[in-house]
Amino acid sequence: MSKFMSERNIRFMMKDVFNLPSLTEYPYYSSHNEKVFQMIIDAALKLADKMLYPVLGEMDKNEPCLENGEVRVHPVVKKLMKAYGEGGWISAGFPESHGGDQLPVSITGITRFIFASANYSASVYPELTAGAAELITTFGTEELIEAYVPMMLEGKWQGTMALTEPQAGSSLSDITTTAYPLTNSEKGGSEESDIRKVYKIKGQKTFISAGDHDGAENIIHLMLARIDGAPAGAKGISLFVVPKKRVDEKGRLIPNDVKVAAIYHKLGYRGAPITELSMGEKDDCFGWLVGQPNRGLAQMFQMMNEARLGVGMGATAIATAAYYAALDYTLQRPQGRPITQKDPSSPQISIIEHTDVKRMLLFQKSVVEGALSLIIQCCLYADLEKVTKGEEKEKYSLLLDLLTPVAKTWPSEQGILATSQAIQCFGGYGYCDDFPVEQYFRDSRIHPIHEGTTGIQGMDLLGRKIIMKEGGAAFLFINEVKKTIQSASSVPELEFHASKLEDAVKCLEEVMVFLLQVMHKKGVDHYLADATLFLEMFGILAISWQWLIQGVAAQKALSDSAACSRKDAFFYKGKIYAMNYFFRYELPKMRAIAVRLTDGDNLTVEMEKECFTNF
Amino acid sequence: MSKFMSERNIRFMMKDVFNLPSLTEYPYYSSHNEKVFQMIIDAALKLADKMLYPVLGEMDKNEPCLENGEVRVHPVVKKLMKAYGEGGWISAGFPESHGGDQLPVSITGITRFIFASANYSASVYPELTAGAAELITTFGTEELIEAYVPMMLEGKWQGTMALTEPQAGSSLSDITTTAYPLTNSEKGGSEESDIRKVYKIKGQKTFISAGDHDGAENIIHLMLARIDGAPAGAKGISLFVVPKKRVDEKGRLIPNDVKVAAIYHKLGYRGAPITELSMGEKDDCFGWLVGQPNRGLAQMFQMMNEARLGVGMGATAIATAAYYAALDYTLQRPQGRPITQKDPSSPQISIIEHTDVKRMLLFQKSVVEGALSLIIQCCLYADLEKVTKGEEKEKYSLLLDLLTPVAKTWPSEQGILATSQAIQCFGGYGYCDDFPVEQYFRDSRIHPIHEGTTGIQGMDLLGRKIIMKEGGAAFLFINEVKKTIQSASSVPELEFHASKLEDAVKCLEEVMVFLLQVMHKKGVDHYLADATLFLEMFGILAISWQWLIQGVAAQKALSDSAACSRKDAFFYKGKIYAMNYFFRYELPKMRAIAVRLTDGDNLTVEMEKECFTNF
Repeated sequence: MSKFMSERNIRFMMKDVFNLPSLTEYPYYSSHNEKVFQMIIDAALKLADKMLYPVLGEMDKNEPCLENGEVRVHPVVKKLMKAYGEGGWISAGFPESHGGDQLPVSITGITRFIFASANYSASVYPELTAGAAELITTFGTEELIEAYVPMMLEGKWQGTMALTEPQAGSSLSDITTTAYPLTNSEKGGSEESDIRKVYKIKGQKTFISAGDHDGAENIIHLMLARIDGAPAGAKGISLFVVPKKRVDEKGRLIPNDVKVAAIYHKLGYRGAPITELSMGEKDDCFGWLVGQPNRGLAQMFQMMNEARLGVGMGATAIATAAYYAALDYTLQRPQGRPITQKDPSSPQISIIEHTDVKRMLLFQKSVVEGALSLIIQCCLYADLEKVTKGEEKEKYSLLLDLLTPVAKTWPSEQGILATSQAIQCFGGYGYCDDFPVEQYFRDSRIHPIHEGTTGIQGMDLLGRKIIMKEGGAAFLFINEVKKTIQSASSVPELEFHASKLEDAVKCLEEVMVFLLQVMHKKGVDHYLADATLFLEMFGILAISWQWLIQGVAAQKALSDSAACSRKDAFFYKGKIYAMNYFFRYELPKMRAIAVRLTDGDNLTVEMEKECFTNF
Repeated sequence: MSKFMSERNIRFMMKDVFNLPSLTEYPYYSSHNEKVFQMIIDAALKLADKMLYPVLGEMDKNEPCLENGEVRVHPVVKKLMKAYGEGGWISAGFPESHGGDQLPVSITGITRFIFASANYSASVYPELTAGAAELITTFGTEELIEAYVPMMLEGKWQGTMALTEPQAGSSLSDITTTAYPLTNSEKGGSEESDIRKVYKIKGQKTFISAGDHDGAENIIHLMLARIDGAPAGAKGISLFVVPKKRVDEKGRLIPNDVKVAAIYHKLGYRGAPITELSMGEKDDCFGWLVGQPNRGLAQMFQMMNEARLGVGMGATAIATAAYYAALDYTLQRPQGRPITQKDPSSPQISIIEHTDVKRMLLFQKSVVEGALSLIIQCCLYADLEKVTKGEEKEKYSLLLDLLTPVAKTWPSEQGILATSQAIQCFGGYGYCDDFPVEQYFRDSRIHPIHEGTTGIQGMDLLGRKIIMKEGGAAFLFINEVKKTIQSASSVPELEFHASKLEDAVKCLEEVMVFLLQVMHKKGVDHYLADATLFLEMFGILAISWQWLIQGVAAQKALSDSAACSRKDAFFYKGKIYAMNYFFRYELPKMRAIAVRLTDGDNLTVEMEKECFTNF
């Protein structure tokens, strides 16, 4: 098996840390059991190893191109779509009633992690398709579901998320793509089109992932547009299904006037095409309303929130693959001697023996295993939200809402640093394409940008999530962290960590109190000025929390010396070291950010742009 | 003028901050004056703007290739070499006695910064040539100098630095390329070859920048090798001139058996070829000893130390170009509204108006202008060392030695983050090759690797520079910082910064005292375990110091309201804001690193590699 991720760590996450098999005690998941989960993970590993990883470099080197108005991708994409469809990977998380396996998100999340660590670009095709299909099943009519979802789940039709427009990057409220109700003649005299809610679409979309490609027979855009005459801003946005090809009266697929205006040449993530689309240039583009008019943005956020977790997962996966490449290299590569060995004729040692290389590896390990843990935690909240009721359901819902921007951003930002450290472990070779780490570095750079930039996530966390329900979500989160502190305090080996995490919680609380005063005294612009820093600080705390959860599990396993083999002991000790690394090297950075957040200075609010530009 | 750097800032550095024209009071530089310096800078700007910047993207997209054993580079390289040679850019820093202009390093450093900000790859050809030629003039015989230096300074012959070997990346003491004294028959019966110190060279070198290309008529390698039978380790390494083509008895250039075994395909920095060389495969490769046998490593460090400053300068230059690209874009791009503006029909604002975008720009500005300042400071120390004597000379020499690893590394590491933030300012467009920032991000990633990795620099700073002369260099540095604090304390606007920098000095002193105790109690391996972190912390302090120096100069200019125009005032206020940014957002990170460095934990020393590998 090619080493792009660790099965052992997945087992640890699934069993020791999150006890995912216990989900099957809920009726909704009761047709599964631990063995089924394991079989699914094994099957995902096999697909990743046999089909995805071998074309990682090839898909990067042969980027998509636009030919005669259509996007050509690497021929393997067609085979992959088939494999994803036939293997049930797109439908795995869907209810049985829609032809799915009703698997928990935490399990499908792990399979997506496996695919993305083998080949991130190749993993986005099914992920986008599943997300788009889920939007249709949640908000669409039975007719729409029947028309689109089966073909999508089979991997024959590609789904997309079409939000951004050239003049409205992060500012979705400014989109101008318009949906026009059909005229009487267009309706052909019948009222059917009212029932089916057909519109004519005109406008442009940009940065649409998998917005066109020849690996699928059709492309189904889940598109935001304004119904002609709708109110300005976010309150006038509706959601449509806009297919590349629509079905005519005779059941044939005919072009739907969605033109690929351009594709982008990207730094990385080159195995998937990113397109610019133009709808309705011939006044012949039809779109079908999904759900309620003017509720499109809220509806889209179902897919968006999942996509944000998916981005965090993708970032974690790429950095994981980079880490294992670096680990492999540092074990093989002889170079230098121990500092205390002065004899130049003594043999060289593997570079993993050097403390600075260990530090670089520990950074990567703590990032990728900490991030994976946080994202599985979020997936578990989504699973529990689905099967619980009342207050409990609300708790999981709020925790998931609160942590989504964190689970999107922290792995995305740290993933760049981790892949960069992987390059550093290789030295000059890491800078060259003889090894995959330079690709991982390029691939990872997309994540702080797509599905909401880091700046947008910071505003989401501090401007919306922290204050929603009068701080209820933040309160619940702190409670969860305190539970972990509680369980760690009774373990002598973890007392240090428990007390440091307690300090970190106090630090967060102090910063929140300070910032809320800033909001009241100086206004929301001052409050949000350093939202990105707040998000970074929150991320450090959240990952420390996840590391302590892992530390508790690892220490428990180590204490049970009868059950813990020598090999297992190394694994668990590795966990303890990575936790120690995080608490000693990374957690102290939280205080440095807090110093800034509470210093009362407003330089970014005050500074006039002329101070940049007059030179 | 294309905006890849700021002339206004160069003027500020040259006059307000470092008063470089005052160097002309020393006899060695007395043939110059302020006007001459300015003319030289203007000429460099013109060359950069007309010849270098226009081919930035082209040279990236058409990377060097190996054809019939020779490296082909973009045809513009030949023209550039000619322009560098004819314009006197390679010889500018050489003594008049060697055909140079005897310019201070601080001025040639600025011209190199200008070239590198326009096109980093294009700037390394002359820089390498000048460094190699300087090694020959410093340590070579008159005969060697005559034979090589004029052609190099004219830009007809390319110089290189050939150190690394496949089995000895960072561990130079393990190089095996060997120099064999000629046999009697090879000497042709004469003793001349002894006098000329000719050897036969056999071995391999890797990662040799500009190691071969068709933009020059010959390639002159300054190569490390062991004379057959020399002692093991660093004490058995000698320095040779090994040309690609040597001059035969009739004065013709004939091949010297230096084969290009491979060229690398790199993440960035693609305008310059990086080669693997094989010498003596036909037993016909001759090399000429430079300086003393077995003193090669020490001699090479003259070029190496300059090259390290050059790397810091290159990193700063690339990040500078990225910053100006981002600045330009953020001024043009409308997106979103002020947070307090809720009306969706109000016009969008330029993204530079958003606080988070200002923060990203301030980060870049504080990195690039802080780093440039530190490097010019180092150049100035080099200039002063050259023209002073006794204790004063030693002071400048020690300060330069101490700060070289910092000036190499801090800009290199932060340059990656700065170019990454430039991408972030562009959003999705930054990830695509429609704009140059994705190239800057790729180009910048080389700098923590070449001319000694960051890990090596950390060991150099903490393991050698801090403890040399019983801490004498560190003492001198702290004194220089204290002088700046002193001059700032009397300016009311800078009291805060002066006191923060004072705290930072105390923090550094505490860490040094703690680490020296670690060395005595636990040994050098513990002492050096986190040398990279120590370097990072030291870098933050050094840049804060440089920002306070700039702050003093800017505040002085602002106070002189009669001389300070409205436009100038914006420039100086921009400096004050960037200083504030650095002191409020970056300086607090120093304490977080100090927490780790003084926590007494040894995890990277203790951890067995099996804890990584058993999974």
